[in-house]
Amino acid sequence: MKKIDVCLSPEIMHLYNVHDRTVVVVDILRATSCMTTAFAHGIDSIAPFASLEDCLAMKSNGYFTAGERDGKKVEGFDLGNSPFEYMDEKLKGKKIAFTTTNGTQAIAKSVGAKEIIIGSFLNLSAVTEFLLVSENNVLIVCAGWKGKVNLEDTLFAGAVVDILKDHIEPDCDAPLAAQHLYTLAKQDLNGFLKNSSHVKRLAKLGIHKDIEFCLTPDRYNVVPILHDGILESGDWNSTIKTY
Amino acid sequence: MKKIDVCLSPEIMHLYNVHDRTVVVVDILRATSCMTTAFAHGIDSIAPFASLEDCLAMKSNGYFTAGERDGKKVEGFDLGNSPFEYMDEKLKGKKIAFTTTNGTQAIAKSVGAKEIIIGSFLNLSAVTEFLLVSENNVLIVCAGWKGKVNLEDTLFAGAVVDILKDHIEPDCDAPLAAQHLYTLAKQDLNGFLKNSSHVKRLAKLGIHKDIEFCLTPDRYNVVPILHDGILESGDWNSTIKTY
Repeated sequence: MKKIDVCLSPEIMHLYNVHDRTVVVVDILRATSCMTTAFAHGIDSIAPFASLEDCLAMKSNGYFTAGERDGKKVEGFDLGNSPFEYMDEKLKGKKIAFTTTNGTQAIAKSVGAKEIIIGSFLNLSAVTEFLLVSENNVLIVCAGWKGKVNLEDTLFAGAVVDILKDHIEPDCDAPLAAQHLYTLAKQDLNGFLKNSSHVKRLAKLGIHKDIEFCLTPDRYNVVPILHDGILESGDWNSTIKTY
Repeated sequence: MKKIDVCLSPEIMHLYNVHDRTVVVVDILRATSCMTTAFAHGIDSIAPFASLEDCLAMKSNGYFTAGERDGKKVEGFDLGNSPFEYMDEKLKGKKIAFTTTNGTQAIAKSVGAKEIIIGSFLNLSAVTEFLLVSENNVLIVCAGWKGKVNLEDTLFAGAVVDILKDHIEPDCDAPLAAQHLYTLAKQDLNGFLKNSSHVKRLAKLGIHKDIEFCLTPDRYNVVPILHDGILESGDWNSTIKTY
């Protein structure tokens, strides 16, 4: 049986051998939720950058620049980190250069994996179907908050482990812990997360609507995939199933 | 209110500022359970070593040498890593040099903390009382398994967070996650852990009796404390309360 593991912080990525794995990078609040939304609304591609300067430099190449530091939009950037900004018609067919505090750092640390895809609750079923038909073992990489473990990314990991439990086997304790937490939380993700540190941090920025949106499963049927350092929508055309 | 945080893997210790914290090092299976047992049975002191060679060298200084690598007793050492070995009358008043795969590494990474103590289910109430009367913020450092997160250490952290919840406030998501997991598991720690990777690994070594013992709360009323690199029993004399 295929194996699934969960890396709860990008700071321990060096412990995982990813060469035979499909890595799912997750940063629920809000990088990978934004990316999923952008592709669902027709963006051409997203170039993820760990460094702010590298990202900004892409402006002269015709890219929209996007992202945040510490949850806030970066000065001089075209777009911030709210998924609602990525529904804009003017972005259709365009290219985005993207950098965030945690999410794009996690992508950078996943380089070397057999395959890298982007996960969020918004494309949960699309991601689990993708993993189901793939032959690869799986590693879910939680972006966390500045290296520390966060609840929302862990819950997403737990959702994937739980949905795939009859087909892909957990190969360590982190996927089991994530699955247990998801089982506790799934009836009311919003309520469960209301005391989490990151949700409290973001609530101070007044983005309750963003949080609620990012915790909604299966809005979109897209799986962003990294090809040569660029995220593309891939050719994922399956119909979303109810598990 | 004082703060409590949980470091789920020694590999991310660099993210935590410990200078104002009492660090509780935990390696339930089995390093810190052995240490607790040893002090409860009258050992004089334990010198923890990250390196096997440094530990072995203490033999010529009159120390008993103790510990494991990959769960197995080290050749040439006097003692292994089963708590039952540490009940021996012949160890009373003696000094032990101790090294393990995870536990003593976690102690080494905690150096710089205001205070370092040893926690296990065996001395759970003694530890929580100690933390309650101390003025320091708290960091629980889970030894994990070779840097990866494990369930049994996380559950112990969750137990401490849960018992102290009216007095010490979680300051990140890891303590909340640990507390949720403990709430799920506390009625039957053994049953909850039967699928965990480390328990499965140890079960292969035939040490079910050790595992059951290590998951028993409040057998002993000792709090091992690190003074100048040496663990001592401290002068902790309170009576165990039922929370």
